[in-house]
Amino acid sequence: MKIVLVSRIDDEEALRYTASLARDLEDLGHGVTLEEGTAQRLGREGIPFEEITGDLVVVVGGDGSVLLTIHQMRKQVPVLGINWGEVGFLADLEPDEAGAFFATLKDGFRVERRMRVSLSVDGKHLGDALNEAVIVTERPAKMLRFGVYVDGIPSERFRADGLLISTPTGSTAYAMSAGGPIVDPQIEGFLLIPLAPYMLSSRPHLISTGRILEVTLETEKPAHLVIDGQSTFELEREAKVTVTRSSEPALFVHTGKPFFEKVNYKLRNL
Amino acid sequence: MKIVLVSRIDDEEALRYTASLARDLEDLGHGVTLEEGTAQRLGREGIPFEEITGDLVVVVGGDGSVLLTIHQMRKQVPVLGINWGEVGFLADLEPDEAGAFFATLKDGFRVERRMRVSLSVDGKHLGDALNEAVIVTERPAKMLRFGVYVDGIPSERFRADGLLISTPTGSTAYAMSAGGPIVDPQIEGFLLIPLAPYMLSSRPHLISTGRILEVTLETEKPAHLVIDGQSTFELEREAKVTVTRSSEPALFVHTGKPFFEKVNYKLRNL
Amino acid sequence: MKIVLVSRIDDEEALRYTASLARDLEDLGHGVTLEEGTAQRLGREGIPFEEITGDLVVVVGGDGSVLLTIHQMRKQVPVLGINWGEVGFLADLEPDEAGAFFATLKDGFRVERRMRVSLSVDGKHLGDALNEAVIVTERPAKMLRFGVYVDGIPSERFRADGLLISTPTGSTAYAMSAGGPIVDPQIEGFLLIPLAPYMLSSRPHLISTGRILEVTLETEKPAHLVIDGQSTFELEREAKVTVTRSSEPALFVHTGKPFFEKVNYKLRNL
Amino acid sequence: MKIVLVSRIDDEEALRYTASLARDLEDLGHGVTLEEGTAQRLGREGIPFEEITGDLVVVVGGDGSVLLTIHQMRKQVPVLGINWGEVGFLADLEPDEAGAFFATLKDGFRVERRMRVSLSVDGKHLGDALNEAVIVTERPAKMLRFGVYVDGIPSERFRADGLLISTPTGSTAYAMSAGGPIVDPQIEGFLLIPLAPYMLSSRPHLISTGRILEVTLETEKPAHLVIDGQSTFELEREAKVTVTRSSEPALFVHTGKPFFEKVNYKLRNL
Repeated sequence: MKIVLVSRIDDEEALRYTASLARDLEDLGHGVTLEEGTAQRLGREGIPFEEITGDLVVVVGGDGSVLLTIHQMRKQVPVLGINWGEVGFLADLEPDEAGAFFATLKDGFRVERRMRVSLSVDGKHLGDALNEAVIVTERPAKMLRFGVYVDGIPSERFRADGLLISTPTGSTAYAMSAGGPIVDPQIEGFLLIPLAPYMLSSRPHLISTGRILEVTLETEKPAHLVIDGQSTFELEREAKVTVTRSSEPALFVHTGKPFFEKVNYKLRNL
Repeated sequence: MKIVLVSRIDDEEALRYTASLARDLEDLGHGVTLEEGTAQRLGREGIPFEEITGDLVVVVGGDGSVLLTIHQMRKQVPVLGINWGEVGFLADLEPDEAGAFFATLKDGFRVERRMRVSLSVDGKHLGDALNEAVIVTERPAKMLRFGVYVDGIPSERFRADGLLISTPTGSTAYAMSAGGPIVDPQIEGFLLIPLAPYMLSSRPHLISTGRILEVTLETEKPAHLVIDGQSTFELEREAKVTVTRSSEPALFVHTGKPFFEKVNYKLRNL
Repeated sequence: MKIVLVSRIDDEEALRYTASLARDLEDLGHGVTLEEGTAQRLGREGIPFEEITGDLVVVVGGDGSVLLTIHQMRKQVPVLGINWGEVGFLADLEPDEAGAFFATLKDGFRVERRMRVSLSVDGKHLGDALNEAVIVTERPAKMLRFGVYVDGIPSERFRADGLLISTPTGSTAYAMSAGGPIVDPQIEGFLLIPLAPYMLSSRPHLISTGRILEVTLETEKPAHLVIDGQSTFELEREAKVTVTRSSEPALFVHTGKPFFEKVNYKLRNL
Repeated sequence: MKIVLVSRIDDEEALRYTASLARDLEDLGHGVTLEEGTAQRLGREGIPFEEITGDLVVVVGGDGSVLLTIHQMRKQVPVLGINWGEVGFLADLEPDEAGAFFATLKDGFRVERRMRVSLSVDGKHLGDALNEAVIVTERPAKMLRFGVYVDGIPSERFRADGLLISTPTGSTAYAMSAGGPIVDPQIEGFLLIPLAPYMLSSRPHLISTGRILEVTLETEKPAHLVIDGQSTFELEREAKVTVTRSSEPALFVHTGKPFFEKVNYKLRNL
C-alpha cells in the first residue's frame, strides 16, 4: 500500500514513534511517504498536505492533528489516527493497539464515511467542517443576533454569544461542551447549538441534510466564523452563511471499535 | 372521500364543532363516519377506533386525542388534527384554518409519514410509540439502573429516575421537557434521554434506526413502561426492552406548515 | 465521651467493622451504646434511634444510613459518617481515615451545622429534610401543575413531573441529577428545582430562608411528598406545602475536609 | 431632594422624556442636576458621572444605562431606573409607572442594597461588578484552562470557553444565558458558571461571600476580563483573579415590586 505518515510536530516522542513506524511499514512492504512538516522535523524529504494521495494516511497525534490533515488534504484519503493526545475521538487507536492493526493491513481495511458540512458566505465557499463551524463575536462578552432559515423559511431568531453548526461527528467535540446531544455518525444532520442563548427556549436543533439551511447575522457587530478550530474567517455585517452537506465526506479507517461504547467510555473519563 | 371524525369527548364545544363539521363534509359530498365514543356523546351511531378505515381521520382535540386515535387504529389512516387543546404539535390546524383546508380537500392532500418506535419486552410486542416510551419507577423518588446495548454491544450504564425513548416527532413533547434537542422528523433515529441521571456525563443520545437498540433494567425495583401516555405496562425485574423502528409509521395530512417555523413559534409560547 | 454506633444492617462487613469499632472506642475510654437494629444484628442490646442522646453518633454506612439516623433522632446529636457505600457526600470519612480521627477524639471536635427544611401541609408538620423534599405524581408519566408563592405573592406557575425543594446540603444529591447548581452549605437558601418542566423558561431558583415559601398543587391528580427518600406522604388535591427553615439543623462532625475540594473530587468520580 | 438625571443618549425620545421629567421634578420642589453626556445632548450644563452626589439618581434607559451609571459613580447614590430598553431587570419602573412614584417621592423611599463583587488581579483592584465579571479568550473558539481556589484550597480545574463570576443580581443576566440558576438577591454569594465547559461534570457553583475565592488562568493563551460589559482588561498569562464582596454595594430604590414575581414574568417574555 501507499501510505503517508503525519506526526504532530511539537512532541519529540511522537516524532520518534512516527520514524520507527515508517521503518516498520516499509519492512512490511508498504510504500511510505512523510508529510512535509513531519519530514522536516525528522531531517527528511516530504510532501505537503495538499498533495497527499495514496491508500492511507496515518496521523500520529490528537484530534487536532487529524482535523488539520483532513482540512488540508485536497482529496480525501482514508485516515487512521494513532492517539498521541489527551482524549482522542478521531484518533481511534492507542499506540499499543497499532501493531496488531498494521499486522493485518495487507488484507485491506473497511472505510467509514463521515459527512462534513460545507460553509459558504454570500455564494463563496469557505471550507468544509468535519466537526463544526462556529460563529462568534469578535468583541468579548457581546451578543450576536442570528436568524435561521430552513428551506428558505425564517424558523428562528435569537441572541447568543455564538452559534455552532456541528456534524454528528462533532457532537462529541465542541458541541458537547455547549450542551448538545450525542448524535450517531450514521445519521446525517446539521446540529445547530446556540452558545449562551438569551432566550431560554432556544434548544439544540438537529436538521436533516435534505433541507436547505441558512444562517444570517442580524447584528452589525463584527463576527468570526471558525472551521474545525483550523481556519478563521471574518464575517461581514448582515452576512448570510449557507450550510450544505459537503460532497466530499471525510474517510476513516474503521478499526472495529463500536461508536457508542467508545464515546461513553471516553465521556466518563474526560 | 371516506372520512372518520373523532372528537375529544370531555368538551361540549368540541363535540358541537365536530357535529357541524360532519354536516359540512357531507354537504361537500364526502362520506362521514363517527368514532364510537364521539358518536355516543352526540346520540348517534359510530365505529370503534379499531375498525377505522377510509381516506382520512379528522381529530378535533389536543395532542392527547391524536395520540389516542393513532394508538388505537388497527391500520394507520392519514390523520388531520384540528387543535382543541392548549399547545398542539400534532393537531396541526387551528379551527379557523379548517374551512380553507376542507374547501380544497377533493383535490387530494399530501401525506407525511412519521416513524414510530416499536417496543417489545422479552420478545413480546407491547405497542408502537409515536411520541415516546418512558420507563419509570413505580416507587416515588427511587432511581432505576439501566443498561443500553447498541448492536448487541453494552454501550452505557447509568442510574436515573427513568429513561425516555423518543421519536423525532416526540422531540417536541416529553423529551423536550427532559432536556432533549429538537429533532427534524425527516431524520429517523431513536432519541434516548435519561430523566435526572445520577452520572453527570449522561447526555441525550440520538441513535440511527439502522442499529439494534436494547435497554435493560438492571435493578430489582419494579418499573413501568408507558407508551405515548396511553398504555402502561409493568416491567418484570431484569426486563430487556427491544426498540425497533415500527413497520407502520403514523400518517399525517401535510397541511403545508413548515416544521421548524411551527415548532419555534410554539416553543416561545409554551 | 458518650458515643452511639449505628451500622447499615444489610452488610456483614459493615457490622463486623462496627463491632470492632465499639471495642476500640471502649478501650479509648469512651462509653459506647449501639442503635437497636444494629445491636440486634450483633446479638446485643441497643436503643432505638428516637432515644439517641450523647456527644456523638457514628454511622457506618452510605448517605442513606446517615439520612435515616438524622431523620429518626428525636434530638439532633453530632453525626460522624464512615463511608460504607458508593459515593458518600454525608459519610465524610473513609474507613482507613477513621483511626486517625478517633485517636484525637478525646481532644474534642468541631461541629458543623447544616440547615434543614421543615415541611408542613395545611398547617401540619410532616418532617424536616436534610437533603430534599420532592413532590411527584403517583401516576407514571403524568405532569403536575405547581404554584410557587414567595412572601405570599404568586411568583411562578408551571407544569412538571415533579418539584424538588432542596437544601444546600442536598445540592450534591438528587438536586444535582435534576440539573441544579452546587450550593455552598454556608449559604442558607431553599433550592427549588422542577423535574422535567414543560415550560422551557423554568429554571432552578435559590430563595433566601428569610422568605416565606409556599408551594401549591394546582392539579387534581394525586401526588406524593417524599422527604430525604425516607418518608412518603400522600398529598391531598390542592394541597399547600409550607417550607420553612427548620429550627433544628443537622449537626455534623467537621473532619476538616474542605467542602468544594471534596465535592468536585466526588463529582468527577460519580 | 437632590436628584441627578441620566438618560441613554442614543434615543431622542428618552432624552425628551428626561428633559420633561427634569421640569416635573423641579416643579415638585426637588433640585435637579443632569449628567454631563445627557446634558450635552439637551444643550445644557451637567456634571460627570464621577461627581454624582445627592439623594437619588434617576436613569432613563435599559439595564446597560443603569450598569454604566453605577460603574462610573465614584460613590454609590440610590438609583431608580425607568425602563427605556428591551427587558429591564435593573430598570425597575416602566415609564407609565413613574408618575405615581414621583408623586410620593417627598415622603422618602426604601433603599435596597445589592452586593457587588470586587475583582483584583495580582493585588491590583480592577473594579466592582454588579452583574458579573467574565473571563473569555481573545482568540475565537479556543478554550482556556481555569483553576478555582476556595479558602486557598484548590477546588476545581477545568477547560472552558470562559468563566462567569456573577452576583445574585446578575443571575438574571448573562449568567442565566449561560445556564445558571436564579438567585435571590437577599442571598450573598459568588455564582461561578463555566461557559461551554469541556468536562461534563462542571456545574454552576454558588459560593458564600464569607469564603476567599481565587480564580487562576492556567493556560498561556491571552484572555480578557470584562466587568458588567462595561470595562475590559487584558489578563496576563497565569494571572490570578481575587474575588471578594465589594465594601460598596449598589443602592437601588425599592419600588415595591416583588423580585420573584418580576423575574418570572420577565423570563416568560424574553
